[in-house]
Amino acid sequence: MSELQNDRGLLLGDGLFETLLWRDGELVDLDLHLRRLGRGCAVLGLPVPTLDQVLGAVARSLGKRAAGRCAVRITYTAGTGGRGLDRVEGLSPTLLASASQAPEPGGDASLVTVAVRRNEGSPASRIKGLAYLDNLLARREAREAGADEALMLNNRGQVACAAAANLFWFEGARLCTPALDCGVLDGTVRGRVLSQAADLGLEAVEVSAGRPVLDQARGLFLTNSLIGMRRVSTLDGRHVAPDPRFDRLCASSSW
Amino acid sequence: MSELQNDRGLLLGDGLFETLLWRDGELVDLDLHLRRLGRGCAVLGLPVPTLDQVLGAVARSLGKRAAGRCAVRITYTAGTGGRGLDRVEGLSPTLLASASQAPEPGGDASLVTVAVRRNEGSPASRIKGLAYLDNLLARREAREAGADEALMLNNRGQVACAAAANLFWFEGARLCTPALDCGVLDGTVRGRVLSQAADLGLEAVEVSAGRPVLDQARGLFLTNSLIGMRRVSTLDGRHVAPDPRFDRLCASSSW
Repeated sequence: MSELQNDRGLLLGDGLFETLLWRDGELVDLDLHLRRLGRGCAVLGLPVPTLDQVLGAVARSLGKRAAGRCAVRITYTAGTGGRGLDRVEGLSPTLLASASQAPEPGGDASLVTVAVRRNEGSPASRIKGLAYLDNLLARREAREAGADEALMLNNRGQVACAAAANLFWFEGARLCTPALDCGVLDGTVRGRVLSQAADLGLEAVEVSAGRPVLDQARGLFLTNSLIGMRRVSTLDGRHVAPDPRFDRLCASSSW
Repeated sequence: MSELQNDRGLLLGDGLFETLLWRDGELVDLDLHLRRLGRGCAVLGLPVPTLDQVLGAVARSLGKRAAGRCAVRITYTAGTGGRGLDRVEGLSPTLLASASQAPEPGGDASLVTVAVRRNEGSPASRIKGLAYLDNLLARREAREAGADEALMLNNRGQVACAAAANLFWFEGARLCTPALDCGVLDGTVRGRVLSQAADLGLEAVEVSAGRPVLDQARGLFLTNSLIGMRRVSTLDGRHVAPDPRFDRLCASSSW
C-alpha cells in the first residue's frame, strides 16, 4: 500500500488545501492562495512549503497543457507516520497537486438554508483545512432539497457562507459579507470583491447578521476561486431581487 | 502516485474511522464499533461494509500477531474520483486497516479547558468522521498549556468532551456525562459505562452542563476504546477530588 495510507491528512484531516483556477497558462491569484496557505500553516503548526515546491508540484500535475481552464488542487498535509492526535517527531509534510477540468460557470444559483452549522468557535473554520465534512453534509442537504448550494448559518444563528463559496448581498447603500469571526473562510475572491467595491465607491462591510436580514437583501451572490462571482436567483424558494451594482462589480473584475 | 491521492477521504475528510483495541487475539467491542460505523455510514450516505470486508482488512493489518495489545485503525472513505463537494456516480468506497502498538495506560490525566469549540450544530460531531481538525487543534492547545488532554466546550459554552475521549463526573448521587446533542461522539466505552453504572445501582444521566458545574464535581474521568477509563487528576490546574465510585466502576468493567 501507499505511504498515503498512514498520512495524517487522510487519517485525521491534518492538513490544508487550495483550489486555484489555471487559465490560459496562468494560475489566477497565485499570490493570494499562497498567502492563505501560509496563514493555514501557522494555525496548524506546519512549515510553509517553498514557492519552488508548490510550482514544481503544480507543473507536474498540469503536464503539457498550454491553454484552456483547469482546476488545480494543492493538498498539503502534516505527513506520514505515528498514531493518535499528537504529531510524532520528524514528520515530513506531504505536498500533492492535481489538475482537472474546471467547472463551467453554471448560471444563477438556488440556495437553501440548511440545518448543518459552521463552527464559529474553531480556528479551523477560517483556514482551508482538509476537514470538510460539515460542508459536505451541508451541500448534500441542499442537493436533497433540490437546490444548487447551501446557506450555512453558525451556531449563533448568524449567516456564514455557502458550502463552497462566500456570500455577499446589498443592504441599502452597503455591500455586506459575513465577518470572518462568524466562522467564515477568508476567500481569495471575497477579498478581491471587498477591495473592488471600495474602488467603485461602494461601502463594503463585514457584518454579523441573522438569517432574517437576507429576506430584505437584494443582489445576493456567491464567490469562489473557480466560479468567480455567481448570482443567487432564489433563497429558500423565494426570488432574490437583482441589483445593478452586482453587474458593475462583475464588469470591474477580471472574472 | 497512489489512487489515494485522489481519495475523497484525503481531499475532503469524506469518510469514517474506528479505533479498536486488539487484546490477546480478540477485537474488543467489535460489535459496538461496527454498529457505530454503520450509523456513520447512514449519516454520510455510504454503503455499510460487510463484516467479511472489515475482518479481512483487519486480519491483513494484524498479520501473524497472536498475543499482546494493538491499536487497530479502520478507515472507510467515500472512495477515489471526481472533483468538488458533490460525489460523482459510481464511486467505490475505500477500506483500509492498520495495526500499531496500543498506548500503555498513562496514569491520571491533567485537563485544561481550551478555546477551540465542538460544533454542536453538525451531525459530524456525533459520528467518527475523518474531519478531526478541531480535535487536533484542541489537543495541541492543551499540550502547549502543559496538560495531557483538552476539555472542549461547545459554542453554547456547555461541556462536551476531551480531544480524544468522552468525559464523566460525579455530581452528588449522579454519574454525569454530556448529552450527545452537546456535540459529543457516541463513544463505545461511554455507552458501556452508562449501562454498567445502572447495573451498580448508580443513577447515570446525560446532561447539558456549563463549565462551572465541573468546579463542584468529583471523580472526573475520561473514556475511550484504547485507554478504557482514565482518572482526571487536575482540571485547569485545580486538583479534582477523587470518588470511590470510580473504582467500583473500574472493578466492574473489563478494563
